[in-house]
Amino acid sequence: MDMWPSNSPADKERGRSFDQKGNRNPAQPRHALKICAALVENPMNLGALCRTAEVFRLESLVLPDLAIAQTWEFRKLAASAHHWQPLEACSPAVVSQWIQSQQQLGYVVLALTTHPQACCLTEFTFPKKTALVLGRELTGIPDELIAMCGQGGAKATVDPGPAAGLGTVVKEQPVGTMAEDRPLGVLAIPQFGQVESLNVHTAAAIAIYEYVKQHAQPKIFD
Amino acid sequence: MDMWPSNSPADKERGRSFDQKGNRNPAQPRHALKICAALVENPMNLGALCRTAEVFRLESLVLPDLAIAQTWEFRKLAASAHHWQPLEACSPAVVSQWIQSQQQLGYVVLALTTHPQACCLTEFTFPKKTALVLGRELTGIPDELIAMCGQGGAKATVDPGPAAGLGTVVKEQPVGTMAEDRPLGVLAIPQFGQVESLNVHTAAAIAIYEYVKQHAQPKIFD
Repeated sequence: MDMWPSNSPADKERGRSFDQKGNRNPAQPRHALKICAALVENPMNLGALCRTAEVFRLESLVLPDLAIAQTWEFRKLAASAHHWQPLEACSPAVVSQWIQSQQQLGYVVLALTTHPQACCLTEFTFPKKTALVLGRELTGIPDELIAMCGQGGAKATVDPGPAAGLGTVVKEQPVGTMAEDRPLGVLAIPQFGQVESLNVHTAAAIAIYEYVKQHAQPKIFD
Repeated sequence: MDMWPSNSPADKERGRSFDQKGNRNPAQPRHALKICAALVENPMNLGALCRTAEVFRLESLVLPDLAIAQTWEFRKLAASAHHWQPLEACSPAVVSQWIQSQQQLGYVVLALTTHPQACCLTEFTFPKKTALVLGRELTGIPDELIAMCGQGGAKATVDPGPAAGLGTVVKEQPVGTMAEDRPLGVLAIPQFGQVESLNVHTAAAIAIYEYVKQHAQPKIFD
């Protein structure tokens, strides 16, 4: 049975193509978003992140250890995405060095948190070259790493957008000098419930969607 | 230990308040979005949906059977959200009746799919009263249910938005007459990878975020 991947009528309608190895849209560049999950501990969250990163064709997913991608829990959630998603490794102990290296490469490093003074995702315009740091389950991102985020020369802007009621609007603000003493380069998703926060993979998937909505390669889907 | 919920400094900074039962923001209305997960089979996906629905303060989550909310798998992923999230039950066999009942109540019922001709989520403006039907893992939503979606008197519009390149722009189009022979009331998230689709909970979380971005109660977060 020719299950995977195929040049099916649905794919032809989508304008998708495959190379001889079965890679879909081989010429399509990856979105310049790196997800740093070096602090994430649960292999199921990491596997789910791999699937989501691959679906959105991201540049890189950073795991605490590449051996995790061999575990049953990871693979069950990754749904074969580990065959295609570029993976990197960074020990939780050296995330600060990883952040510095990305900044030297020209990436704006942002932290995804539930910090009450963070910039609201619905109002944020992502720099094209973004590295998004996720927190450890329950304990989040250490303050010393949050303090490193948002530094660097690139600019990020906060847009009014369709949900202007959600927060203060700041325009053309360089990262590092956000208004009202907000921490540098810290993003949060608006939350309304009793449960303290979204699951780390769920939060990352939403942020990835928002990034891709802003920077998507055009016309691949429609 | 006073872990949950508390009137912590972070909550005070957020402007959150609690009633005597510990409910956060008791006066805040729920967002008028219902998630129909009656076709979803995996209790872990359903538990994850419960957590996400609660975080975004949605009106209702529809499970195939309320007994699922008692299972270990559901509760592990729900992270206590089942204490607060309104749940309904609908057997997979009677989803068509549930869709009709919601349409009679004035909800626009939409299907979240990977249909190649679906309307792209990034360009869609949600009606305020929306019921979103999710598909079964692997097999999705049966055609006869998809055919029922989008019917009814309310209007949905498709906006150019910041990602106008992703698809054809249609404005002020009544649901039921979308351009270019698109199926009625069918939404899809743009996908770029080799893996055939997002996990059903991940896709739902992204659609919920997009809805809340458009219809959020203002000023709760910032």
